[in-house]
Amino acid sequence: MVDIATRVWNHKWKIDPIVRSLIDTDFYKLLMCQSVFRNKPDTQVTFSLINRSKSIRLADQIDEGELREQLDHVRSLSLTRGESTWMRGNTFYGKRSMFSPEFMDWFETLRLPPYHLKKHDGQYELTFEGSWPEVMLWEIPALSILMELRGRAVLSTMGRFELQVLYARAMTKLWEKVEKLRSLDQLRVADFGTRRRHSFLWQEWAVRALREGLGDSFTGTSNCFIAKSNDVEAIGTNAHELPMVYSALAKDDAMLARAPYDVLSDWQDEHSGNLRIILPDTYGTQGFLDNAPDWLAGWTGIRVDSGDPATAAEVAIKWWKDRGEDPRDKLVIFSDGLDVDKIVQLHKQFQGRTRVSFGWGTMLTNDFKGLTPGDTLAPFSLVCKAVSANGSPTVKLSDNPNKAMGPKSEIARYKRVFGVGEQERVEVVV
Amino acid sequence: MVDIATRVWNHKWKIDPIVRSLIDTDFYKLLMCQSVFRNKPDTQVTFSLINRSKSIRLADQIDEGELREQLDHVRSLSLTRGESTWMRGNTFYGKRSMFSPEFMDWFETLRLPPYHLKKHDGQYELTFEGSWPEVMLWEIPALSILMELRGRAVLSTMGRFELQVLYARAMTKLWEKVEKLRSLDQLRVADFGTRRRHSFLWQEWAVRALREGLGDSFTGTSNCFIAKSNDVEAIGTNAHELPMVYSALAKDDAMLARAPYDVLSDWQDEHSGNLRIILPDTYGTQGFLDNAPDWLAGWTGIRVDSGDPATAAEVAIKWWKDRGEDPRDKLVIFSDGLDVDKIVQLHKQFQGRTRVSFGWGTMLTNDFKGLTPGDTLAPFSLVCKAVSANGSPTVKLSDNPNKAMGPKSEIARYKRVFGVGEQERVEVVV
Repeated sequence: MVDIATRVWNHKWKIDPIVRSLIDTDFYKLLMCQSVFRNKPDTQVTFSLINRSKSIRLADQIDEGELREQLDHVRSLSLTRGESTWMRGNTFYGKRSMFSPEFMDWFETLRLPPYHLKKHDGQYELTFEGSWPEVMLWEIPALSILMELRGRAVLSTMGRFELQVLYARAMTKLWEKVEKLRSLDQLRVADFGTRRRHSFLWQEWAVRALREGLGDSFTGTSNCFIAKSNDVEAIGTNAHELPMVYSALAKDDAMLARAPYDVLSDWQDEHSGNLRIILPDTYGTQGFLDNAPDWLAGWTGIRVDSGDPATAAEVAIKWWKDRGEDPRDKLVIFSDGLDVDKIVQLHKQFQGRTRVSFGWGTMLTNDFKGLTPGDTLAPFSLVCKAVSANGSPTVKLSDNPNKAMGPKSEIARYKRVFGVGEQERVEVVV
Repeated sequence: MVDIATRVWNHKWKIDPIVRSLIDTDFYKLLMCQSVFRNKPDTQVTFSLINRSKSIRLADQIDEGELREQLDHVRSLSLTRGESTWMRGNTFYGKRSMFSPEFMDWFETLRLPPYHLKKHDGQYELTFEGSWPEVMLWEIPALSILMELRGRAVLSTMGRFELQVLYARAMTKLWEKVEKLRSLDQLRVADFGTRRRHSFLWQEWAVRALREGLGDSFTGTSNCFIAKSNDVEAIGTNAHELPMVYSALAKDDAMLARAPYDVLSDWQDEHSGNLRIILPDTYGTQGFLDNAPDWLAGWTGIRVDSGDPATAAEVAIKWWKDRGEDPRDKLVIFSDGLDVDKIVQLHKQFQGRTRVSFGWGTMLTNDFKGLTPGDTLAPFSLVCKAVSANGSPTVKLSDNPNKAMGPKSEIARYKRVFGVGEQERVEVVV
């Protein structure tokens, strides 16, 4: 068992990289990468870092040299023999050979493409350009590097005992959450916290704590490296970047209106069962479901990632009923801004009406809120998104306008095409 | 830095003894041992374990074989070369050669005498008989062995994560106490918690936490082994066993009445400054001070170890004033049942009126109260006392009848001789 406080104290930063492996990333990134590799390998995309928490001036807190060192280290990584064996031989959701030999041959030789970094107004402008299947793999390492470097900058000002007590408090806090969740019957919760984790070691501790404390109610982690080394299930499906890029590639409004369904049509060709999860909120959940082809209602479930989660789940249940499906056979995955109280509340509200699962992110792997004077370790909202594809800007509307992205004129066009009206704003904390 | 949870988990009990050294004991035991070695070397005494917390059935919780193994281990210990060097060469309260060459020559060859152990009604009857300077050294190891074995019995039922979270909680709890004490101006606090510590490792952690958190307000530890290995001051003066044994040896009432002052007369010949601390409560503080010879008022301070501490300190201040001394030059050491709130309160009440110092014991080194289901690790009140000297029973009255000891008829006689009337009962928790 790792004594995290001591490890942090002893850090030889240069020999203890933040990202330790090419699969120290979310499982759904690898799934999507394979899909993109098969369907849109030549698409040129740009991914960009976006700090939604403007008050956190990352460029003032994080040394540029250290940041470059960590980013350069990621570019030096390639798939190890053991990692390849794990990807080729593992069972995911009960299915073998999730990754095709063609994809694995390519992935084994992959190195991540160059990055572009400069400072502007206290923030880092960090962008990645190149072919989609390569560039997309930067998202998670870039985020976890920036999150951990910001944490390290704070930790480096602390004494040895302060550090040990800090982690004692964080462990106590997390374990109290575990004890609250323990009482829930038939709970299903997974770790989705790689991108905004406090640190690699802390995420691993959190995963082990959930495994020990929740038993079968803990269904796995999105982090492939942690899943592999701790022998737990890797968990994930798909994300907004697929409809965002497909939509940006659409040549006219008719193609745009169809793009989100094209994504899932391609996905359906590749995956079954628990991987057939709809992410409906990219351009508004209600419109997406209203206009959805009937075959989509046959999919396993829906992931709720913005807006009011209970409302979205009610919309999904009603939609399934309208399409002649039994919601009790369906799966609703909540994954937006969860913490333990919201998990308890949603579990109580939907248990028995549909199958429910939770993808618990930042407040699992980075809840250091209130643990330092001045709250210098409180998590914040950092994302890394596809901002253009083959020269066209991407757009996200979301069910929460505070999560929307893209040029104003394009947002207006997308709202018109997808029939999105007034939306309720919800504060984005993490 | 030690990861205590892991160490506890990994314990190879047989190679990780509870008492690690002959000086893993309280400094005042060594001081008193030297005094006894010089003044009463041939006195035959019996020391006996007394569990004041009857509901804790130690013989049901602690395996007799393990207990014997730990006690036997203590008998195998002798002073190491480094320990001897530390005792001979160290400065205590600014004075060199605190321990005489004659005492050190004897102490270097010492092994502790045999013990007698049997079970009765769920408790252990553990006694030590022999010459006073040898037997007296059993007190602290015997107590710390029983306390830690009881803790280990509880810990051995816990899982690895439960252990890590337990210590995380205990660290958090202790650090919150440190943070409360930090705000006090001119605080002076020392660790007096060896005898009823949760474990050796935990006591050492507590000492380091005080050192880091309190800086100069932390004045040292009573534990010589921890003082030596952590380069902090060893702290202590004298205890009830001196007047108790001197009194038991008194041949008549007149000699009995004089005995507690004879102790201090012998002590005065050997020690000056911060070691001239009166412990007045053995047979009632008020009577002791009323009848005290004038030279005692010249001593440095008074240790308050039973009854209501504020009352006892007021009695001492009044006594000094009556004897023409300025209380602001004097030292009051509080050492009974302290925890952080009481320390804060007493500090506020007496700061500026007299010099104040705190000897913080069980609630520093063993506050696991409320940290396990059923409160199975809450500290309890275990003592090991001289019960007879040269065949006569010892007596302690204390300022709290719940701490009194001795045969009924002798207690009545002592009350008469020392003029002790009605006393207020105070619950003894630790």
